[in-house]
Amino acid sequence: MTATSDKTRVLTGITTTGTPHLGNYVGAIKPAIAASQDPTVQSYYFLADLHALIKSHDPKRVHQSRLEIAATWLALGLDTDNAIFYRQSDIPEIPELTWMLSCVCAKGLMNRAHAYKAAVADNETAGQSDLDKGVTMGLFGYPVLMAADILMFNAQRVPVGRDQIQHIEMARDMAGRFNHLFKGQYFTLPNAVVDERVEVLGGLDGRKMSKSYDNTIPLFVSEKKLLKLVRKIKTNSLEPGEPKDPDTCTLFQIYAAFATEQETAEMRRDYENGIGWGVAKDRVFEYLNTQLREPRERYQALLEDPGHIEDVLRQGADRARAEAAPFMDQLRQAAGLGRFV
Amino acid sequence: MTATSDKTRVLTGITTTGTPHLGNYVGAIKPAIAASQDPTVQSYYFLADLHALIKSHDPKRVHQSRLEIAATWLALGLDTDNAIFYRQSDIPEIPELTWMLSCVCAKGLMNRAHAYKAAVADNETAGQSDLDKGVTMGLFGYPVLMAADILMFNAQRVPVGRDQIQHIEMARDMAGRFNHLFKGQYFTLPNAVVDERVEVLGGLDGRKMSKSYDNTIPLFVSEKKLLKLVRKIKTNSLEPGEPKDPDTCTLFQIYAAFATEQETAEMRRDYENGIGWGVAKDRVFEYLNTQLREPRERYQALLEDPGHIEDVLRQGADRARAEAAPFMDQLRQAAGLGRFV
Repeated sequence: MTATSDKTRVLTGITTTGTPHLGNYVGAIKPAIAASQDPTVQSYYFLADLHALIKSHDPKRVHQSRLEIAATWLALGLDTDNAIFYRQSDIPEIPELTWMLSCVCAKGLMNRAHAYKAAVADNETAGQSDLDKGVTMGLFGYPVLMAADILMFNAQRVPVGRDQIQHIEMARDMAGRFNHLFKGQYFTLPNAVVDERVEVLGGLDGRKMSKSYDNTIPLFVSEKKLLKLVRKIKTNSLEPGEPKDPDTCTLFQIYAAFATEQETAEMRRDYENGIGWGVAKDRVFEYLNTQLREPRERYQALLEDPGHIEDVLRQGADRARAEAAPFMDQLRQAAGLGRFV
Repeated sequence: MTATSDKTRVLTGITTTGTPHLGNYVGAIKPAIAASQDPTVQSYYFLADLHALIKSHDPKRVHQSRLEIAATWLALGLDTDNAIFYRQSDIPEIPELTWMLSCVCAKGLMNRAHAYKAAVADNETAGQSDLDKGVTMGLFGYPVLMAADILMFNAQRVPVGRDQIQHIEMARDMAGRFNHLFKGQYFTLPNAVVDERVEVLGGLDGRKMSKSYDNTIPLFVSEKKLLKLVRKIKTNSLEPGEPKDPDTCTLFQIYAAFATEQETAEMRRDYENGIGWGVAKDRVFEYLNTQLREPRERYQALLEDPGHIEDVLRQGADRARAEAAPFMDQLRQAAGLGRFV
């Protein structure tokens, strides 16, 4: 109802409990930044800091992560003239809508949510008599907050991992019930967009690069630290001169995620010709370092100027609220909570 | 932390799904209005319209009920210079705080809430296989919203019925956890105040006067309608001249709730002397009508001027938000959601 243009509305939340790493970049940041520059798309990117409270009660970590993530996205070229980039906690209409959706969302829907069921299963495995042990109302109800994130801006497309499809279906369910109960087409039903081609990068130990495995290479570390980390990437014991298999090699995969097709083909040949691990690692380091030098400098400059990041996010929040506030007025009115005159 | 005075902070939410009746007046409105005039107390009264969404998906009813209730309280002399009188839905900080409290509130706490357990028990009795049938996330989680209502203003005393004590204990639990996790005395732990002397008025059929029994006498109906309703109050078949028992008589009880002690004593004598039901009813009608005439006129005038009610409530909301907004800033900061500069 609030669409002001014919652009496709695409919404992405960014978790704010860690420091962005190469895996985040390849899998999420790079494609999102490319989309932010597409003039046919109205992108909404937000730092999901209300969600962060579910996972972390460490204020410093949440605060710092938000700052690092904002700096990272801006350093990598997020187009904030086109895309709307904001902090979730700057939009009070989102928790308001969360409450309204709670009142049309069956508890049974949440009983079946993956994250909750996984927590219950863990308690079962651990022999806990209280299967809800450690589950907060935030964890239990977060698909409602996620629905509010999406429906607040009537997003049409929500890029998600396979495990998140269920949440989009739940958002559709709440949108449909609200529309039905309050007799209007208030909400657009969002669609999950699962990109099967999303690249999953390996980490230092060869498993998926992930904060939970403590095997990440942060995107913007010092040259020295980057070199150290690249050298730590797990390889096998083959000697220089022995042919190596690029397709099972994390080092190769990381290189390929950044290099051109031609460069990747050359490295593949060098693997087959028995490049030594030390040489290969140095080359990958040099390549990454060259690619990351400029954004890293921008990133460092941004981190030293949190006031600028604050301004950018406030401007994004103003744009987001320019849509959210009148829409919430309309929704309050629909539910009988409008003003008297 | 936001207390700006030494007054005792007392908070009362008013359900907004019905039309105020004599039972509401005697049990809740009259004592609350008296408290609003106490200069040693800072009262917070709010139309609990976010709560209303749990029970009612009828926007007209919620809207009209809010208007009637606001007009009623104002007509009866609520001192809005002293008390802060606002609409819950005008305070966006309340749903924001609700989300933050969700993240420190164990789901297990809500599993044990009376209203939820009653709904489950009803499903069990009805032989439902889905024990959560008909339970929304709003119904399941509303003690968290109630905690936010209370903690937002650091209310020290919350007058409640016996069935609500549990919710105050839950609010204390969330307040304590938040204070502990985020290392500060952000929230005052509220106390339930149960007034055992609260008068429960009988309705037309002799059972407790309640919307759910459809046996109410609305506070502000026309004279004609009031007379008709008083005449409908159930009495027994004793004839004029036969002594009647005032202590088991709803008509007497209603009279006593409004009359002075002396007037009540006189009526008691008349009962013993065998007053006829017709005469007694006419006298009760006359008495009520005399008492209610002036507030009824003010009520009607207020209903015809919703703009004035809106202004009063907006002023109340401004006063409430003058406390809530800086307090939320402080809470966001505590949880790592503060601004970058």
